[in-house]
Amino acid sequence: MYFGSDNTGPVHPAVMEALVAANTGFTGSYGADPLMDQARTQLREIFDAPEAEVFLVATGTAANCLGLACHCPPTHTIFCSPTAHIHEDECNAPEFYTSGAKLTLVGTDDKISPQALARAIEAEGNRFPHGPARGPLSLTQATERGQIYTLDEIRALTAVAKSHDLPVHMDGARFGNALVALGCTPAEMTWRAGVDVLSFGGTKNGCMGVEAVILFDPARATEFQLRRKRGAHLFSKHRYLSAQMVAYLADDLWLTTAKQANDNMARLADGLRKFPGVTFDYEPAVNMAFLTIPSPLAKRLKAEGTAFNIMQGSPDTDDAVTIRLVTDWSIAPTEIDRFLALAAG
Amino acid sequence: MYFGSDNTGPVHPAVMEALVAANTGFTGSYGADPLMDQARTQLREIFDAPEAEVFLVATGTAANCLGLACHCPPTHTIFCSPTAHIHEDECNAPEFYTSGAKLTLVGTDDKISPQALARAIEAEGNRFPHGPARGPLSLTQATERGQIYTLDEIRALTAVAKSHDLPVHMDGARFGNALVALGCTPAEMTWRAGVDVLSFGGTKNGCMGVEAVILFDPARATEFQLRRKRGAHLFSKHRYLSAQMVAYLADDLWLTTAKQANDNMARLADGLRKFPGVTFDYEPAVNMAFLTIPSPLAKRLKAEGTAFNIMQGSPDTDDAVTIRLVTDWSIAPTEIDRFLALAAG
Amino acid sequence: MYFGSDNTGPVHPAVMEALVAANTGFTGSYGADPLMDQARTQLREIFDAPEAEVFLVATGTAANCLGLACHCPPTHTIFCSPTAHIHEDECNAPEFYTSGAKLTLVGTDDKISPQALARAIEAEGNRFPHGPARGPLSLTQATERGQIYTLDEIRALTAVAKSHDLPVHMDGARFGNALVALGCTPAEMTWRAGVDVLSFGGTKNGCMGVEAVILFDPARATEFQLRRKRGAHLFSKHRYLSAQMVAYLADDLWLTTAKQANDNMARLADGLRKFPGVTFDYEPAVNMAFLTIPSPLAKRLKAEGTAFNIMQGSPDTDDAVTIRLVTDWSIAPTEIDRFLALAAG
Amino acid sequence: MYFGSDNTGPVHPAVMEALVAANTGFTGSYGADPLMDQARTQLREIFDAPEAEVFLVATGTAANCLGLACHCPPTHTIFCSPTAHIHEDECNAPEFYTSGAKLTLVGTDDKISPQALARAIEAEGNRFPHGPARGPLSLTQATERGQIYTLDEIRALTAVAKSHDLPVHMDGARFGNALVALGCTPAEMTWRAGVDVLSFGGTKNGCMGVEAVILFDPARATEFQLRRKRGAHLFSKHRYLSAQMVAYLADDLWLTTAKQANDNMARLADGLRKFPGVTFDYEPAVNMAFLTIPSPLAKRLKAEGTAFNIMQGSPDTDDAVTIRLVTDWSIAPTEIDRFLALAAG
Repeated sequence: MYFGSDNTGPVHPAVMEALVAANTGFTGSYGADPLMDQARTQLREIFDAPEAEVFLVATGTAANCLGLACHCPPTHTIFCSPTAHIHEDECNAPEFYTSGAKLTLVGTDDKISPQALARAIEAEGNRFPHGPARGPLSLTQATERGQIYTLDEIRALTAVAKSHDLPVHMDGARFGNALVALGCTPAEMTWRAGVDVLSFGGTKNGCMGVEAVILFDPARATEFQLRRKRGAHLFSKHRYLSAQMVAYLADDLWLTTAKQANDNMARLADGLRKFPGVTFDYEPAVNMAFLTIPSPLAKRLKAEGTAFNIMQGSPDTDDAVTIRLVTDWSIAPTEIDRFLALAAG
Repeated sequence: MYFGSDNTGPVHPAVMEALVAANTGFTGSYGADPLMDQARTQLREIFDAPEAEVFLVATGTAANCLGLACHCPPTHTIFCSPTAHIHEDECNAPEFYTSGAKLTLVGTDDKISPQALARAIEAEGNRFPHGPARGPLSLTQATERGQIYTLDEIRALTAVAKSHDLPVHMDGARFGNALVALGCTPAEMTWRAGVDVLSFGGTKNGCMGVEAVILFDPARATEFQLRRKRGAHLFSKHRYLSAQMVAYLADDLWLTTAKQANDNMARLADGLRKFPGVTFDYEPAVNMAFLTIPSPLAKRLKAEGTAFNIMQGSPDTDDAVTIRLVTDWSIAPTEIDRFLALAAG
Repeated sequence: MYFGSDNTGPVHPAVMEALVAANTGFTGSYGADPLMDQARTQLREIFDAPEAEVFLVATGTAANCLGLACHCPPTHTIFCSPTAHIHEDECNAPEFYTSGAKLTLVGTDDKISPQALARAIEAEGNRFPHGPARGPLSLTQATERGQIYTLDEIRALTAVAKSHDLPVHMDGARFGNALVALGCTPAEMTWRAGVDVLSFGGTKNGCMGVEAVILFDPARATEFQLRRKRGAHLFSKHRYLSAQMVAYLADDLWLTTAKQANDNMARLADGLRKFPGVTFDYEPAVNMAFLTIPSPLAKRLKAEGTAFNIMQGSPDTDDAVTIRLVTDWSIAPTEIDRFLALAAG
Repeated sequence: MYFGSDNTGPVHPAVMEALVAANTGFTGSYGADPLMDQARTQLREIFDAPEAEVFLVATGTAANCLGLACHCPPTHTIFCSPTAHIHEDECNAPEFYTSGAKLTLVGTDDKISPQALARAIEAEGNRFPHGPARGPLSLTQATERGQIYTLDEIRALTAVAKSHDLPVHMDGARFGNALVALGCTPAEMTWRAGVDVLSFGGTKNGCMGVEAVILFDPARATEFQLRRKRGAHLFSKHRYLSAQMVAYLADDLWLTTAKQANDNMARLADGLRKFPGVTFDYEPAVNMAFLTIPSPLAKRLKAEGTAFNIMQGSPDTDDAVTIRLVTDWSIAPTEIDRFLALAAG
């Protein structure tokens, strides 16, 4: 059973069909294809943001870093969670794309609190020019530990940022998962809540490899395009990025796959919760769970071929280990049940 | 008729089928998929280089820049043609990925001569530390004007570079086209001729979006992987890059498509050659032609919906214009003939 | 009374005389001056490191960043204290000079412990290529809070670094102050204790503006020189940097000034210790003190024209504030006494 | 005799005296010293630019690169002469400080013509986003071959730049020399002629190591200060930079030294002109000459201990060599005469 990541699963059939369907004849390259116009229109509608600029790239890291670079001079610092993907899993890509901005880790928790943010911003405030100037806030929604910020929480955080004139970036690699969990609109979770630029994830939620960067303030569009090209992220056969995104958005497919992934995790979590010695480090809100399980259980699951990451500890030397489980849309509920039965031993 | 670029055409059906076929179940991400092992093995065999390290990225610019960055410190300069893609069409991506290396343009022609290269290297040689130190030679094969270097020419150039201990990079965005035109082996055109790192093109020649970077000296493999991740070019659903490459290489598909593209250009060029007032700026050796045509002809072709780039001049104000035509594998010879008939007026 | 910083004070007369004396006739530029040869020889003797390479720059930040950049690829991370100057006071200069390395803050204290360092290194160790690779350890001696590492402490830390093959950098902006406090030899405090590259401070301790970078492993010398030039830190009229360093080192002037500065602080601290409500945040080991004092005292001192930095709190709203006091060589003990008398009110 | 460079000579006595005089007591660091206020006021008056922002750094390369970086995003290109110091002698510092901007070399001559500039700008104009966007024009006045642009020439060039909305930087490492040669005012040669940012040279013309960056548009001041700190170019004991600049500007010392240097070159050139086989590559307008001389003469001068750079050719293998001679303020006319006599043989 594959619970290692939501990027080890397949592409949704509708997305693959769209790729095949797009594969006829000739069309403009580098983004000048009609499917891109369609994707842009769809996203503007979905976000109720008719002026937003939309660009596609192939990786979440590229989306994050190009979006951030347009909102963060090299002499500035980005405020983020210590668990943020941009800090832990991008191999200095943000530092690279911003030409040397720093990342200021806010607090010690997965979710940033407004108080911790205010303190971090103030701490960076008084030392011009010796310390970096204050740059954007970057929020991950849903977080890298599978939690979500409520709308009130997002607004409270963006309010702190705005009180210092700082832009706000949202890493939405699992945007769909968070949205269906919150049950609000895309606009409510982003620009209406103070977000300026969004990495809108597709890859983890059913696509092959596509993310949209949505600049709610279109002023940065030209800079973004130059940075994207310079970062080697402008696809020549761009229609194949566009086709994925169009299919992903059509008929709310992205919401369907997100909901399926979340429901799979709820099912899995509810089952695991019953096992002795299993505790959840974070209450799973979307499709990712961090939990501590007894080492014998971990060993048995591995022996049965279940794929998951051990985040902390070793089953051979520790009594319990912390593991991460991730579900995607493609797992059938029956497979979850089968897994739980196997896990019961 | 689409002669604008070889990246406006479709993906070869065999490659698309491979993507569909790869889209089942779960597999390792970030390059840890069996298809990647297969692609690596294929390329090592094709290049007769069992120790070579092979990595996949999605764009030619990424391939060039990551390969170059592993062979060029920031304080150095890269020797390249004034027409090189890395100079004209990557929006400072080489400067970005090398953290500030310079590009030294060698001579004034599309193809670099050994004499011009020797002069350029010597000119950069005496001013430590005031001038950049001498870094790699970058050759484009086939060039951005559609020419190719013979094996002797490549060896003469790499000999000059090696006499100064400089590494050699080859931009092979149109590698297949050059190879079939030269009729030699991949090893002969690369590492046996002194090339250290190759961008092996797939996108222009039938793939959706994949290029291989082949490090003939495997020592840089770790650095490459870190830089790739940092550049946001490590695909999570990597199997879809691997699947393209495996299909592209299987049964010499890449040679078939390259030959088809070259043959299409030969047919097109032979036809156009007969028109009054048409002169070729460079003798087309692969699938790209630069030619000067009378403005009335240019206007007529545009009016009939032919896509091509006007490189120099304006049909409204000049008597003649220089245009670029590119053919890919997907154009049928009959379409070429139909176009020539239309062009005859 | 000036206790704001050791860079607000004057240049030592012997250093100024040396500048005047060097100001005759012509000599080689860019480091090719006989005084540089002299400074190099002096430092090699002082450090008992006849193979070390020595280069001069004008600022401590340049010394740190150029030294670090030669030991840290862009895809790596530097381990340092959260109070390190390279983190707090260089406005992203390390990120800039390394082309995007990250800084990993170790622990929460001013001084790094071997246990915290080992944990930080291990935390960065398992995620290739998603996290930055592990780069150098940077130690500040004396620290930015005025503490010093004992020789055992340095060795314990460098042992942890070396066990992972990581180079070690020492920020010695106050090297002299630390050395006289420890009472050991320069070699014992650096390369014999596992340090690979040192920023040897001159500016704070009596010079006008000069720091030496000492590369105990000379292999990086060429790279250093290119990076220095590229950073715009190669002085053309270099003799004036060399002259300062030669005078600074002659007759142990640097040890004399350091001792004077330390003694001044000891005198000041001993006097302040007697005041009610005064507590030292860190026991002053060199020429810097962080202490918490009652706000009325802070106000009175400011009113009397004493210069010092308030690090935390506000005298108008808080009962107590944390202040920083720094003494340099140029303050006479009688001035310290006079100040203490004034402070007593 | 020293004709190698104007940075091998001594510091003017008045500047040295000012350094000594500044060396008393304590004062603000990092630019917060009264002498800096004085230098700023002086420069604003000299340039008749009361709103200009003025910052001091220690090297010409730092001045150029920090000034350019404030006017050139990383995705852009800088237009400059192929002989520009920023291209030939800064070891990629412009690429570094701009985070990867390209340098577009305009024409093949030392002085840029408006026609060549217009062509170069237009050539970079049509390929968004594939080519770098168009960034600043950088002019060197006086040039690296010792020529000067007339006011009309400067205006014609800046007009071309402004017609494309491009900012204009002037590398004034030898600004004083050019100014006295032209006989105009500083304002006329800079902002009134369309220059936005100037590197105002001090080091070559009598100072120890100081250059002023004058931002005629003060909007970039904050960015400049952050970049300067980040580049490690903010001097802590800043008063010693300020003191040099104040003395350099007082009583038109800078004009006196510049005139003396120019007059020295005129005298030297007039004498050399009479020698058989001596031809000037460029007519010396300031204090630098490029001339071709017979190899026997070159050898004799070297044998007699004359310092100068051989730019092209070798006296052992070529009949003639191209050499560069530079005079500074400190050479007495009688020494020039003595040299000419020796040279006559």
